[in-house]
Parts: sequence; C-alpha cells; structure tokens
Amino acid sequence: MMDVAEFRRRGKEMVDYIADYLENIEQRPVYPDVEPGYLRNLIPSEAPVEPEDYNDIIKDVERVIMPGITHWHSPHFYAYFAAASSYPAMLADMLCGAIGCIGFSWAASPACTELETVMLDWLGKMLKLPECFIAGTSGRGGGVIQGTASEATLIALLAARCKVINRMRASNPQLSESEIFSKLVSYTSIYSHSSVERAALIGGVTMKKVSTDKNFAVRGETLKKMIEEDKAAGLIPFFVCATLGTTPSCAFDRITELGPICNEENIWMHVDAAYAGSAFICPEFRPLLNGIEFADSFNFNPHKWLLINFDLMSFVTMFPHGPIKRLTCRGCRWSPFSSFVLQHWQIPLGRRFRSLKMWFVFRTYGIQGLQTYIRKHVSLAKEFEKMVLADENFEICAEVIMGLVCFRLKGSNEINQKLLERITKLREIHLVPCQLEERFILRFAICARTTELRHIQRAWSHIKKLAYEILQESSHCLKELFCQYIPVDTQ
Amino acid sequence: MMDVAEFRRRGKEMVDYIADYLENIEQRPVYPDVEPGYLRNLIPSEAPVEPEDYNDIIKDVERVIMPGITHWHSPHFYAYFAAASSYPAMLADMLCGAIGCIGFSWAASPACTELETVMLDWLGKMLKLPECFIAGTSGRGGGVIQGTASEATLIALLAARCKVINRMRASNPQLSESEIFSKLVSYTSIYSHSSVERAALIGGVTMKKVSTDKNFAVRGETLKKMIEEDKAAGLIPFFVCATLGTTPSCAFDRITELGPICNEENIWMHVDAAYAGSAFICPEFRPLLNGIEFADSFNFNPHKWLLINFDLMSFVTMFPHGPIKRLTCRGCRWSPFSSFVLQHWQIPLGRRFRSLKMWFVFRTYGIQGLQTYIRKHVSLAKEFEKMVLADENFEICAEVIMGLVCFRLKGSNEINQKLLERITKLREIHLVPCQLEERFILRFAICARTTELRHIQRAWSHIKKLAYEILQESSHCLKELFCQYIPVDTQ
Repeated sequence: MMDVAEFRRRGKEMVDYIADYLENIEQRPVYPDVEPGYLRNLIPSEAPVEPEDYNDIIKDVERVIMPGITHWHSPHFYAYFAAASSYPAMLADMLCGAIGCIGFSWAASPACTELETVMLDWLGKMLKLPECFIAGTSGRGGGVIQGTASEATLIALLAARCKVINRMRASNPQLSESEIFSKLVSYTSIYSHSSVERAALIGGVTMKKVSTDKNFAVRGETLKKMIEEDKAAGLIPFFVCATLGTTPSCAFDRITELGPICNEENIWMHVDAAYAGSAFICPEFRPLLNGIEFADSFNFNPHKWLLINFDLMSFVTMFPHGPIKRLTCRGCRWSPFSSFVLQHWQIPLGRRFRSLKMWFVFRTYGIQGLQTYIRKHVSLAKEFEKMVLADENFEICAEVIMGLVCFRLKGSNEINQKLLERITKLREIHLVPCQLEERFILRFAICARTTELRHIQRAWSHIKKLAYEILQESSHCLKELFCQYIPVDTQ
Repeated sequence: MMDVAEFRRRGKEMVDYIADYLENIEQRPVYPDVEPGYLRNLIPSEAPVEPEDYNDIIKDVERVIMPGITHWHSPHFYAYFAAASSYPAMLADMLCGAIGCIGFSWAASPACTELETVMLDWLGKMLKLPECFIAGTSGRGGGVIQGTASEATLIALLAARCKVINRMRASNPQLSESEIFSKLVSYTSIYSHSSVERAALIGGVTMKKVSTDKNFAVRGETLKKMIEEDKAAGLIPFFVCATLGTTPSCAFDRITELGPICNEENIWMHVDAAYAGSAFICPEFRPLLNGIEFADSFNFNPHKWLLINFDLMSFVTMFPHGPIKRLTCRGCRWSPFSSFVLQHWQIPLGRRFRSLKMWFVFRTYGIQGLQTYIRKHVSLAKEFEKMVLADENFEICAEVIMGLVCFRLKGSNEINQKLLERITKLREIHLVPCQLEERFILRFAICARTTELRHIQRAWSHIKKLAYEILQESSHCLKELFCQYIPVDTQ
C-alpha cells in the first residue's frame, strides 16, 4: 500500500517527472510509432494478486505508456484544436483530487457548487455576455461546467425539446406527446461538430443539415427557407445549433441573422463556440459574438483555449429555472439545502470540483495574461498564413480568423492526402485534415502553450520539403498542377 | 504567469498541503457551517485584470474554500456512499493531467484507448464476469470508462432503444419509428437511483416502477406480471434496469429471476451495481452477482469503493459492436486507425486518460489489498449493526450486507428527523437519511479509507447521546415509543 509519508515522497517525484516531461517534450516524437493493439502485449493480462513496488509502476510509464502517447502539448502538435494545459490548472486539479467531493448537491460540498457559480459569472463577464446570462445574487441565468461540448449541446436540445412539447400541448391538447415528437425538427450547419447530430439521435428528434455560404457560414436566408418549407409540411421546427468557429475551418455562422429568425419562430437557438469562445475575452474578437443576445443557451470550452486543463467546458443558459428543471426526478429529496443544485443542469449527477481550475488560472494569469496568450496564437496563425501565401504551390482554403490555418497544395485531393500521409509517417509534426466542399484540406492549428515562431517556421520548412519531394517524384502531379492552376494572366 | 521552475516548487508545496489535509482531516468539522451564498461575498465579483501572486491564491484555499467543504474523506463522514480516494490514484491523476490528451479516437493517444481496454479486462476478470464481457484480443465484449453511473444507464437505455426499434421495424415494416417509440416501456425498482428514471426521460420513453419484496428487492414474479399486462395493452417492454445494492438500503434485485424473464421476452437487462460492484472481487460476495450471465450490460463505480478517485465508473457491455455503434455519426472520419474508438460507447466525445488511475491502484494494492479494504468496510458495518441491535431503543431497517447500515429510533418519523437534524447541526459526524416504505431512516455508510473501529464507536456514542437527549426532552415521545414498540412478550 502507500502511506502519507510515501505519498509526500512520490508526489514530489511526480511533480519533477511532470516538469521534466513538459520541459523536454519537444525532444519526443509528437506522434507515436505503434500499431493498434501494441499495449496489450506489454503488460500482464490480469491484475496482480500481491501489491507491486511503486518503482516498477513508475518505470512502466516510460516503457508502456509514453511510446503510445500523442503529445498534445508538444509545440510540434498542430492537430485538432488546442487542448489547454497550464501549471496553475494542474495544481488546482491536484487539490480537486485531494478534496475528492462528489458535488451533486449543494450540501455535498457547498464550496464546489458556489465557486462554480461565481466562476461562471467571472467568465460571462470576461466575455461581456448579456446580463441575463449572469447568475449574480438574484439572476435567473448563469452557467455550469459540463465535461464536454457534446453534453452541453445535448442538454440544450433536451431543454428545447421539453419547452416545445409543453408549449404545443398547451395550445393543442388533442396532440399526444409522441405525435409532437415525430414532427420535431432541428437544424445545424453541414460543418457543425458530429456531437450536434448525435445529440439529436439521442434525443430522438430529426436534425437537418443547413448548407453554408462560400465562407462556410450558415446564413439567415437559407435557414428561413428551410423552416418555412418544414412548417408548410406540418413539421415543428424547435432547435437551431449555430457554431462560432466550426471544427473544419473555424467558420462563424451568422448569429445576428439566425437569432432574430429563431426568436420570431419560437425556436431555441443554441450557440456552440467550443473553440473560438475563449477568444471573445479580447475586445478585438468580441464582435464575433454579436447576436448572442438572441440565444437561449451558449457553450464554449475553456479546456480548449483558456489554459484550463480538460475536462472543463462551460455552458451558459438563459433559462436555468425553466425547462432544464424538467430533467430532475427524485434525487436529493432529502438534502437540507437545494437552492443550487447543479445536477439538474447536466447528464451526470456527480461532479468534480472543477471550478478550482478556473479560479487558479484566472488569478494566476489575470485577464491580461489570458488575452496575451490568445493573441499570440492568432498572430502565429497569421504568420503561418503568410508563409503559405508566399509559396505559389499552396493555397489558403478558408479565412484565417483565429488560430487555425486551412491550406493545401494546389492540385488534387490525392496529392494532399499523400502529403499528409508523409507528414504523419515522419512524426516531426502532427496535423489532421478536414474536408470542405469535397476538397481534402490540411488543418494547421496552433495548439501548445509553448508554440513559438521558430516552431512554425520549422514546421513550414518541413511541410514544404515534403511537398516538393512529392511534386518532384511525380511529374504527372506537376503537370496537373501546371494545367489547373497557373494564373490565366501570366500564361 | 508560472514557469516550470515555479511549478516544481508549488507542486511540491501542494503535495505537502494535500498530505497535511488528509493526515489531519479528522480535526476539521466534517460538515461545513455556512449558509447558501456564503462564498460570493468572500471573493471579487470579477476576474482580476492583472496576474495575482500565487501566495494569495493558495492562502484563499483555507479562507474561501475549506470552510465550505463537506469532507468526504474524513472518517467522520458516513453519508451517501463511499467516494474512493487513495494516494496512488492521486499520483496517476497528476500524470493524467500532465499528459493532457483528449482521447476521443485511437490516434488521439493510442495508450489512452489501449490501457483502458486492458484495464477493463483486468476489472472484468477480478469480478469473474462471463467471458463475453471481456475484450481480450478477439472478443466482441469489453468495457469502457464512463464518468458516472448516470451516463452508463443512459447509454444502455439508448442501445436498448435502438435495438428494439430495429427489431420491430424489421418484423413490422408498416410501423413508423414514432409509433414504436410511443409504445416502448422500461422498468426499474421503486428504489433504484434517480438517474435511471432520468435516463428514460432523456431517451423519451416510459419507465415504470416495480415494487419490491420485504427486502426491498425486485422479484421475477412482480416484473413478469407487469410485462404481461403491458404486452396485453399493446405496449412494447424493452428495457429493465436492475440494481445490485440500491442507494437507500443496499438491496439486491434478484437478477437470477429477472434475467431469464428478460432473455425470454427479448428485453435488454442492464445491471447497475454502482456501489456494491466493487465487493464482487471478494469470493464471498461474488454470489451476489450470479445472474449476470443474463445481462446485456453492466456498470459499477470503482470510484465509489475501489480506491480510484472520482470520476471513474466502468461500464461493461456484451454487444459493443452492435447497437451502440448507432450513436456514431461523422466524427473521426479521417483518423488513420479506428479499431478502438471509445467515443462510440459514451455521451462525450473527449475523454481523459482515466485508466492510469486503475493501473496505479490495482498494482499498488494488488487484488489482495483491495479485498482487505472491502472486507474492512463490511466488517465495520457489521460492528455498527451490533451496536445498534444492542440498544432496544433502536432498530435495524434492512439487512446489512455491505458497508451500509439502515437504522432508526423505534418511533415516529418526526423523532428520527429530529435526531438527524441534531446530528447535522453538531457536525461531529455526517449522515443522510433515506425513506423505506414511508419510514424515515438514517443511513450509516462506512465511507472513508481511514475509518477504524474507534471512529464508529465514537459515532455511535454521539448518536446515542443525542437520541437520549431527544427522548428525555419529550416525554410525549417516550410515551409514544413505549406504547408502540415495547415487545409484546416482555409486557
């Protein structure tokens, strides 16, 4: 076993191991060189009967775990979106683990519920959300931490489903709940996150995909037309999930156009700003959130871009004491206080004391420090965009607004797939692709807290070198490039 | 900000703070003396613009947080059920935070997916689950970590819903999905956890409550009768959630009776052993799991009683490649490997590297160490039961099988409520009540890893002292007690 004295020693060793890991992460290949199933052969197939020595366990971290890690916090990691990580968040997480409360009700640990309520207010004010999103001392609004955006979207959809069913039954008592259910229809962009579609699957309602303009953004007119057609067909439009900062290209649905339509049609508008939301703490990016005043609910992931380690997504809603209460059943009937019961706002009942991470990070960095961090990522993306634009073999595929650059070799999908395969195989940097209008595109996302200009310069040299090798290997490809893309005016 | 050098220093300070906290936790009142809203006045209403000194932050932990903590790991804590906490789990959690991967696909961090698959196999073997629950190298079964039992039950219900809809549509192509939906009916005990009812609410299906026998357990006959009535009324029974170790009294639904009925009727049987599941690693308790061979899915919470800090629930299912796949949509289309994609088994897409905690704990304790810990809790509960039985003013209200004792003063609900109110107010120990057949009952759950005989002796003296004070204060109560409860044979 392990007593408190050993924990003191092992804990300090672990702090040093973590510090060493993060300090030297650049030296590790960012992407692992293992095949599926690699790990099973490295460890026994059953748990040991007798206790093992801790030294053997910690040795196995390098032998078994590290070879299979994709290093999300390496400055050579440009895949997906950023996953936040900072030292104060890790310290807070240690404390959270030690307190180890299961905060499903106020009484189960008052500080857990209360700090979360206040931290979500801090966050709402940092984002300059409308007053109705703030709990304050008497407000009806407020936010709650969900684990992931998937849960937030699902909760919003369920709340909207409940609201529309209540409304329809009140006005049409002859309709059964299942009749209403079968007519419900929700909407989201063809580029929204897969979890949005999944929320509709779980909630058992139809979800229609809305096409976008050339900037990959959903526009009011397109939505309005679909709503009108569906209403004419006897369906009941009830939910729209708009995205600010889509996963493929970081596009911004036009919520200033969508919001008034939703409000007029009595449709719940949920705004998912999973990645881009953090940037709205900078005044220069805040205009991208305009239109939020039309929304019924809003979520973004501080664990992506606000230096607060996973899992920590925040969900802000305007009507916490309305429809969401419907999720409640018996639980906590006996708790002596029930003024704040965050379990009613989420799928799980239990919850960790995650707001400690927000408190530590907001105070350690200050709003200024967080703004500096966001701005650095955006400016690095702009630098990378310049590098891409300076090479006529490449093209930029979507407007660079935040820390994401979508680019590709001018030419076929195949050549770009080949380029990505080679990048992945060499494991010097790591990126993932996306698809925009049938085109295979490389996504270059600034991710790590420690990414600097020299890293992206090196990444770009590496990408260019591999691209040129591919171009040279295949004269066919070169020819294709030439025919398709040489500008007309220079021919 | 905080650099790596400061993290080394602050991290080690935090390790000592945590060690001190846990070493001296007995000295703190187990239950906080604060009113709802207490915290908001202790901290600013907005995040600081400038960074703050770390010393100020850490000082505020004692000033702001600790006064509002219900100390779940105090040996004076006997409320709810145990929440696991151990030093190796905390060390593993620190490492998990540092690696900070978001394991939504195999490629996003292979070790994260693979260790989880193997750890769930370890767990399945520790519990001697049937072979079909084990992934192995070629199995179709296997388990996954969910955050909470709520999510596990929901996933099971959704999988069952999908399966029955597919089956009904295949055999009755004229039925629409919403017609089937409206006829679906699921079942669970009147004593099952509120999250079960909530899963049905979210999934949009009817859930009926099944009454129990005098041991608060659901029996086969009762269920069979309800199913037959519902079928006769044209409904479609599709899902049963049985509980092994209910929240109020740790009762065990008779799955050896329920299982064959479910199998015969093509009903998905989910077994929720949230608390009691951990005990099945002891051969003497394993018979309580008999009947699991009839189940389609199974969950229990190692974060309750297996020394693995929250949040870590495990969910084992027999048909991972069948209906659950239906939850999938577009996500991860581009990932180079997709053989293990745990996101399809859960609500969130992202996931922390939580299996590290299992690996560290199982190896540090060994199966023997974990068995010793379970047995100690059960034997302490038996000791407490003896103390209660030795006092004729008290009664035991449910069979003591695991670490929970349900007891009360012989007499009215009011007198027991008064007793609990006084216990809660004095904050020397903390417990919560339950209701069984309209009776208000006190639950005494052995919770902390460090609870010893001396703690429960002290707790019992305290309870007795308060009870006698109440009895003496009110001669009416005494009289009531006398008339109602003095055994007939001694009159």
